[in-house]
Amino acid sequence: MDINFITICDFIGTLAFAISGIRLASAKHFDLFGAYVVGLTTAIGGGTMRDLMLGHAPFWMTDSFYLVCTAIALVWVIIFRKLLVRQNNTWFLFDTIGLALFTLTGMEKTLQAGFPFWTAVIMGAMTGAGGGVMRDVLINEVPLIFRKEIYALACVLGGGAYWLCYVLNLPKGYDAAACAVTVVVVRLLAVRFSLRLPILKGEE
Amino acid sequence: MDINFITICDFIGTLAFAISGIRLASAKHFDLFGAYVVGLTTAIGGGTMRDLMLGHAPFWMTDSFYLVCTAIALVWVIIFRKLLVRQNNTWFLFDTIGLALFTLTGMEKTLQAGFPFWTAVIMGAMTGAGGGVMRDVLINEVPLIFRKEIYALACVLGGGAYWLCYVLNLPKGYDAAACAVTVVVVRLLAVRFSLRLPILKGEE
Amino acid sequence: MDINFITICDFIGTLAFAISGIRLASAKHFDLFGAYVVGLTTAIGGGTMRDLMLGHAPFWMTDSFYLVCTAIALVWVIIFRKLLVRQNNTWFLFDTIGLALFTLTGMEKTLQAGFPFWTAVIMGAMTGAGGGVMRDVLINEVPLIFRKEIYALACVLGGGAYWLCYVLNLPKGYDAAACAVTVVVVRLLAVRFSLRLPILKGEE
Repeated sequence: MDINFITICDFIGTLAFAISGIRLASAKHFDLFGAYVVGLTTAIGGGTMRDLMLGHAPFWMTDSFYLVCTAIALVWVIIFRKLLVRQNNTWFLFDTIGLALFTLTGMEKTLQAGFPFWTAVIMGAMTGAGGGVMRDVLINEVPLIFRKEIYALACVLGGGAYWLCYVLNLPKGYDAAACAVTVVVVRLLAVRFSLRLPILKGEE
Repeated sequence: MDINFITICDFIGTLAFAISGIRLASAKHFDLFGAYVVGLTTAIGGGTMRDLMLGHAPFWMTDSFYLVCTAIALVWVIIFRKLLVRQNNTWFLFDTIGLALFTLTGMEKTLQAGFPFWTAVIMGAMTGAGGGVMRDVLINEVPLIFRKEIYALACVLGGGAYWLCYVLNLPKGYDAAACAVTVVVVRLLAVRFSLRLPILKGEE
Repeated sequence: MDINFITICDFIGTLAFAISGIRLASAKHFDLFGAYVVGLTTAIGGGTMRDLMLGHAPFWMTDSFYLVCTAIALVWVIIFRKLLVRQNNTWFLFDTIGLALFTLTGMEKTLQAGFPFWTAVIMGAMTGAGGGVMRDVLINEVPLIFRKEIYALACVLGGGAYWLCYVLNLPKGYDAAACAVTVVVVRLLAVRFSLRLPILKGEE
């Protein structure tokens, strides 16, 4: 893979994550600053948790790229407010690309730090889905990913695909591709067919 | 104390913590994945905060024991859904054992890292009670331990008992025993006699 | 600046932050322990996040000053419950002093750790305003600072003033003073004239 391709995926993924946070913040009547913070948290929250657990300084502290992306997302929401619903398919696709890339990044950083594969799978899912959970905590809602179409599970399955390639001793590069493709395919299928995990029955 | 005894306490405490999270998640109609995450957060959340503050990698990142325990807890809730209420006394007891062990672990790790005793008392309480607070944040409820029967205070008193043994220069082992016994006794008394701290009166 | 002056500002700022948390906790009928935890989180939460991101042990783990301040705040709220409303102007002023000092501390610690200025501005705002966000998460409310009078933006502007002094090559000391004065002035003006950022319009 080419560095430019990764950078483009990172850009549109960050944009999509930030926009999802900003839209939910606007539905709660947050001001511009609040919306920016929620958008930023959605975009960088998962990776920040991962970096803290790995003992690194959070990735965005040395690269202003993510703050700029979030600012672009905020401007976009302000300008295209009435068109956002019509752009839903595009943003869903960008969000999915971000989810795949962030999962992959989380896995590879964790493996590089010397942790076992199963830890990397968890950290990949946290990188991909953690920001959305923090977003929902900030806007005071029950986290969406715990009840809606399969989301974090796509990250887990993507992580499993990465692992499988390693176990099968496939050449380097296959693992990353398998991870990203799995996340994207699972997520597309989940939304296309409204696939959900069973709800845990209450005790009544 | 024997390593097996500690491991058993760790197992039943982790199980009880995870089950408390999973039950509350099911009352909120979370799906299986969401329930697992809430259960896991309840079980490992306090220790994770502690490890991050002590500058360690979170304990569960190198030991899959806690993920397996949470999976067992999830299966248990699914299978014994209708019997859980009748098991309430057992789970309360297991939860209390977990609370005592986690408090003790939190204290000892903090002391080993060279921090003062009062810091260790706080870290013990955070290890014991922090996961429950994170659980309640995730299910979007006001944290239970801030309003119900004495819970985190039992950890603080247990920490105080540990400290007292040190001040009194008692032989090693007494401190840990005094801590655990204090947590258990305070918690049993609190629930038996519905002991609560005074509610802070509002201003109006 | 003199060490005593800073210490006094730290004391009254911590007191004001803790009292804001304790008052909101009492409105939610928290018990004494819960109110203490919420007060403490408000006072030290922002600095704790900053220290974790900078890779330091949280500042309060080696200095019991902040725990004692919070205890004083709790006693104060209990004793002066009915007079607190009349003290509102004083507490607002103390809160503002705390906001200025915490922003400054956050900036300087981040710069000392070798991060760029824009990171320091973010960390300053997080140190000043992060505790209030954590407070609102704990009491299960939408964070106040995302919707009310300008608050965190005062920190950002204060950080910008610090940066400007550096760019203009002004002598050491001017930067800190400019930062603190900017935070205080912006905050006073915001409350005096009910200055708010525009609310982000929903999509509907």
